[in-house]
Amino acid sequence: MLTGASGFVGRQTLAALAAAGHEVHAVARRRGPDAAGVSWHEADLLAGAEVLEQVEPQVLVHLAWYAEHGKFWSSTENVRWVQASLGLLRAFAAAGGRRIVIAGSCAEYEWGGERDLNERDSPLRPATLYGVCKDALRRVAEAYALEASLELAWARLFFLYGPHEAPARLVPAVIRPLLAGERAATTAGAQVRDFMHVRDAADALAALADSGLIGPVNVASGQPLSVVEVIELIGALTGSPQLIDRGARPTPPSEPARIVADVSRLEQQLGFRPSIPLRDGLAATIDWWRGQPAGAPS
Amino acid sequence: MLTGASGFVGRQTLAALAAAGHEVHAVARRRGPDAAGVSWHEADLLAGAEVLEQVEPQVLVHLAWYAEHGKFWSSTENVRWVQASLGLLRAFAAAGGRRIVIAGSCAEYEWGGERDLNERDSPLRPATLYGVCKDALRRVAEAYALEASLELAWARLFFLYGPHEAPARLVPAVIRPLLAGERAATTAGAQVRDFMHVRDAADALAALADSGLIGPVNVASGQPLSVVEVIELIGALTGSPQLIDRGARPTPPSEPARIVADVSRLEQQLGFRPSIPLRDGLAATIDWWRGQPAGAPS
Repeated sequence: MLTGASGFVGRQTLAALAAAGHEVHAVARRRGPDAAGVSWHEADLLAGAEVLEQVEPQVLVHLAWYAEHGKFWSSTENVRWVQASLGLLRAFAAAGGRRIVIAGSCAEYEWGGERDLNERDSPLRPATLYGVCKDALRRVAEAYALEASLELAWARLFFLYGPHEAPARLVPAVIRPLLAGERAATTAGAQVRDFMHVRDAADALAALADSGLIGPVNVASGQPLSVVEVIELIGALTGSPQLIDRGARPTPPSEPARIVADVSRLEQQLGFRPSIPLRDGLAATIDWWRGQPAGAPS
Repeated sequence: MLTGASGFVGRQTLAALAAAGHEVHAVARRRGPDAAGVSWHEADLLAGAEVLEQVEPQVLVHLAWYAEHGKFWSSTENVRWVQASLGLLRAFAAAGGRRIVIAGSCAEYEWGGERDLNERDSPLRPATLYGVCKDALRRVAEAYALEASLELAWARLFFLYGPHEAPARLVPAVIRPLLAGERAATTAGAQVRDFMHVRDAADALAALADSGLIGPVNVASGQPLSVVEVIELIGALTGSPQLIDRGARPTPPSEPARIVADVSRLEQQLGFRPSIPLRDGLAATIDWWRGQPAGAPS
């Protein structure tokens, strides 16, 4: 069973799980397109976990969460998702489930240091309600999994990009004006981040579901990239680098200088490496936006 | 509003809040005795927080939790109480509430060190599902309180004793056989703990509710006492020290040698000091057990 199956990460994870030969029960408030091996279940998980009792899945990949861009960091909806996720976990155990993969976040870590963030000893000191809620859910879920004899893997997602990303986020916010022949105002872009194409993240989540790995695992590229490198690559790939107004927007003082994952656990223990180079991933994302109606919501 | 109002700590806290002149709405699954200033509400908080919407309290003292002796450390009921407590918090904010005091536990701390446990820098590394759930609830509740403009104080209770304690716990487990003229088998009792009479704890909770203090506060005596000192005092006070078989029960290997609170925050910032010396508290507890029917459940 996959929750959040019609979301940015969920739709790709659905494809990855189906491609791996699983019979997938996809849960979302609104069903997505039909696909081989996929059964859709329209359900609001904030209202209860009955869908789980009906399906009795062996493996649960839980991605559903509040994700409204610009609001999710501090929204009190995060608290409702802690409640709902704990209810889902209990229903999963009661229905005879065996293994769970939950989407965590790099926002669980303390930000601001120079070191790559790792699962062993990087401090967990989330600065946002979103990060606190993910971190607290992980603490309870891991302790609960021990008592209930469940396997739990916790996938800490970093900075993902790709098709269907919220238009106001960095990559679409640069691509869309350039494709429309308009100027794109960006920050100076000195901050360094860990970017990964969402399809790579989905493949990693599917691999985690099929593995026996437990505990937190960074799902990221491990490659430090400055935001300006990403912006300039988008400029080059769209053929409109002159439309970029770099530095026209201030960098918020709360932006940490560097957020990069140590991916040794992902690589060595899961045996996973991303397969989509940034240039290819951005080019495909630009193509995808070219195919969208011009009046798409921003 | 006070939840868990008919429990071991709750019934004393109810009396302390009423004595302080508050109009108290007492919530419990089964109502307790009538008292001046107290309105009872029979409600199962695991089923929802509707009672809060009806009452619209200004201040919430939330003590309700799963507390079955011998089971609560690892019961998955703890997870349900995290869910219910978060729902209660949200309902409290939605109903216009202002200030919350929640019962935490010394079990949130890492146990096993030699230092007094303090709120500033003692490591939080709970060893049990109970401790993990309390700790995770505190993390979410504090971050939520910031976003929702609530004041939140988190009372870490240590080792409480007094009337209505579960019969299988240390103090009643020694008192009851001695009063019945039977032998009491105890551990060697070298472990050092921080004991406080439950009425002192209740007074501290009521003082916290009336204060503007936020964040975690140890509610404890700060006095290190070995278990053997407590056992021998009970022997002396009952006049039957010869009935104690000290060392007849093995000390579980998981028992930490020392769990004692640093109470400087309680004393200096709340201005609270316990008023019941151990000898008086134990004597009163022995008297209370003398008044109980002999066939009370053990």
